[in-house]
Amino acid sequence: MNPFSFYNPTKVHFGGGTIRMLGKELNEAGIGKVILVAGSGSIKKNNVYHQVTDTLGKYKIKWIEAWGVRPNPELPKALEILELARKEKVDAILAVGGGSVIDTSKAVAAGFYLNNLWDAFLGKEQITNALPIYTVLTLSATGSEMNANAVLSKPDAHMKLGVFSPYLYPKLSIIDPTVQCSLPFAQTVNGALDAMAHILEYQFADDTPHVTLAINEALLKTIMACTDNLKTNPCDIVSRGNLAWSATLALNGISGIGLKGGDWACHQIEHALSAFNPNIAHGEGLGVIFPAWMEYMSEKDPCRFQRWARNVWDLDSPIPAIKRFREKICSWGAATSLRDLCIKESNLQQILDLIMKNQPIGAISKFTAVDIQALLMLAF
Amino acid sequence: MNPFSFYNPTKVHFGGGTIRMLGKELNEAGIGKVILVAGSGSIKKNNVYHQVTDTLGKYKIKWIEAWGVRPNPELPKALEILELARKEKVDAILAVGGGSVIDTSKAVAAGFYLNNLWDAFLGKEQITNALPIYTVLTLSATGSEMNANAVLSKPDAHMKLGVFSPYLYPKLSIIDPTVQCSLPFAQTVNGALDAMAHILEYQFADDTPHVTLAINEALLKTIMACTDNLKTNPCDIVSRGNLAWSATLALNGISGIGLKGGDWACHQIEHALSAFNPNIAHGEGLGVIFPAWMEYMSEKDPCRFQRWARNVWDLDSPIPAIKRFREKICSWGAATSLRDLCIKESNLQQILDLIMKNQPIGAISKFTAVDIQALLMLAF
Repeated sequence: MNPFSFYNPTKVHFGGGTIRMLGKELNEAGIGKVILVAGSGSIKKNNVYHQVTDTLGKYKIKWIEAWGVRPNPELPKALEILELARKEKVDAILAVGGGSVIDTSKAVAAGFYLNNLWDAFLGKEQITNALPIYTVLTLSATGSEMNANAVLSKPDAHMKLGVFSPYLYPKLSIIDPTVQCSLPFAQTVNGALDAMAHILEYQFADDTPHVTLAINEALLKTIMACTDNLKTNPCDIVSRGNLAWSATLALNGISGIGLKGGDWACHQIEHALSAFNPNIAHGEGLGVIFPAWMEYMSEKDPCRFQRWARNVWDLDSPIPAIKRFREKICSWGAATSLRDLCIKESNLQQILDLIMKNQPIGAISKFTAVDIQALLMLAF
Repeated sequence: MNPFSFYNPTKVHFGGGTIRMLGKELNEAGIGKVILVAGSGSIKKNNVYHQVTDTLGKYKIKWIEAWGVRPNPELPKALEILELARKEKVDAILAVGGGSVIDTSKAVAAGFYLNNLWDAFLGKEQITNALPIYTVLTLSATGSEMNANAVLSKPDAHMKLGVFSPYLYPKLSIIDPTVQCSLPFAQTVNGALDAMAHILEYQFADDTPHVTLAINEALLKTIMACTDNLKTNPCDIVSRGNLAWSATLALNGISGIGLKGGDWACHQIEHALSAFNPNIAHGEGLGVIFPAWMEYMSEKDPCRFQRWARNVWDLDSPIPAIKRFREKICSWGAATSLRDLCIKESNLQQILDLIMKNQPIGAISKFTAVDIQALLMLAF
């Protein structure tokens, strides 16, 4: 088992009706004014907005609102919200939404103390402080509610980059899985695929942390079983709850224990896909890339995927397990090829160029342009 | 899945050679003087003391030493160390040892700001502050290195009580599993049994948090496999590492998610056993009580143990699984009956009286004196 450090100070309140605990928590932390960051308005339909503003009002916490964060969130929106947060001198950022809203909020929280926000993503400026971040999660997917990562796109540069800083752990995240009952199934699936991809990025990096590998297998199987159930019964609250907590655990540090930081080639490749076309949902893109990556990797090193094939799919070898993985994704109605994502063969060179911008690609095996080209063909 | 709150801000450095990170961490936290709390001297034999004082010296951190904490740690020792900590005006407590040393250190840390330390255990005085706690773990068992619990005995009252306060989370715990290679196998087993008991206290409290139940099964199986390996190869460092991290996860909050706080009847019963005879190792006592509790409970409600029998033992029903559980404990050379712990039938009434002192007993099913009597006979 490789050495590691673990630290995750985010507090979580989880369960139906927990949104009402927000006001008291903010009040006890001495926060008088927040900027409520949100997406396109779904939180008004699912009653989350009402619950949030209700508890803020009850504890006399002032708030201003910043709407319009989109999936694959972008730097200009974060800068716009940052300007507002500065002007209004807020004490904290309150993210109400999914991973995009939370990531944008983290960028704003850090940007508050930075000269140039994008420089932090480029590694040119260090994050040394951030406004306190509070989140109310409405889509289980990225795990951003309980980690210190944020990912933003810079559309004019076709770049999608991530940043990590211990200052970006939310102080508190409220996860009420009942509010996710109204999600379209495709969004639930994208969330599930994203969470599974986080686990898979770690799972093949080493074979000695048996306990982490076994936990990750438990997470993968739980996520798939819950997603299966939610296909026919979107309000199955036991499945919503188990899926939500599994997605949080998928990227809160636990799933990576002893796994040397994981691989992350698939995420790098997918980031280029959604930088190429921001309409590609992150989870769906990962659902296309991951089986292709496994296929490509297992040709050279099938042993690496043996344990996963056996313990997750009850199969003796990787190739049939990867086939079953693709069938599972297909059964959920998600894309299983780049073609399904409306990418043409003539786009592949441009995507390859975008991918190669951020070297190195992968940790288990450093991918060259030749590797990526072969992988893209497998995914096509 | 039942509502829950999760919060665990303890930082962990894990792996061979991580003890040397201690001095820098203390220095960065502005700590100039600590009280080093330890047991009977094993840390001088396994080189841990040398590594700790080396890193303290390197960062010019002053320390005083308080030795002699014993298994089943006692209030008088904690009070003695508390007096020294106050007199010496230390900035932090540094626990170097196993669960007993860490629990004693937590009591000292809280006691620093209390009028009467034992009153906190009795629930008469609230913990509202504590000195910062740092730990260097030398025996994986109690999980105290990453939780906010402490258990002490008051021998003159034959009482063993626990306390919880968020102020008692260690700031930092260093877990170097390589230092556990020199442990006698019986101590490794007692640690493994203690960790398994923590998981089992939660495991049967509800059947809806599928993800937690699956994680707990992964932990139980990992702990047993590692202990089996360590029987023949005490220096198997992969098993030491996996066992150590599993024991930490067994009681850092993760294993109890959605399980309504667990049952804890077996711990209450075992606390009375070691209050009756402090020479009974906590883990070994639990190894006697738990199978008996399962046997007693599964008579009325076998379904509750079905999943555990299937997923941990690959068996269809609880009774043969409990038999296998006892055989496993026996194969490790640990006690499987009260008789093995040198308890006589004539002692049972006194033990029953001690158990009944702290009501209610158990959460899944509230145990009466009649239940306890029957259970003790099964364990006898």
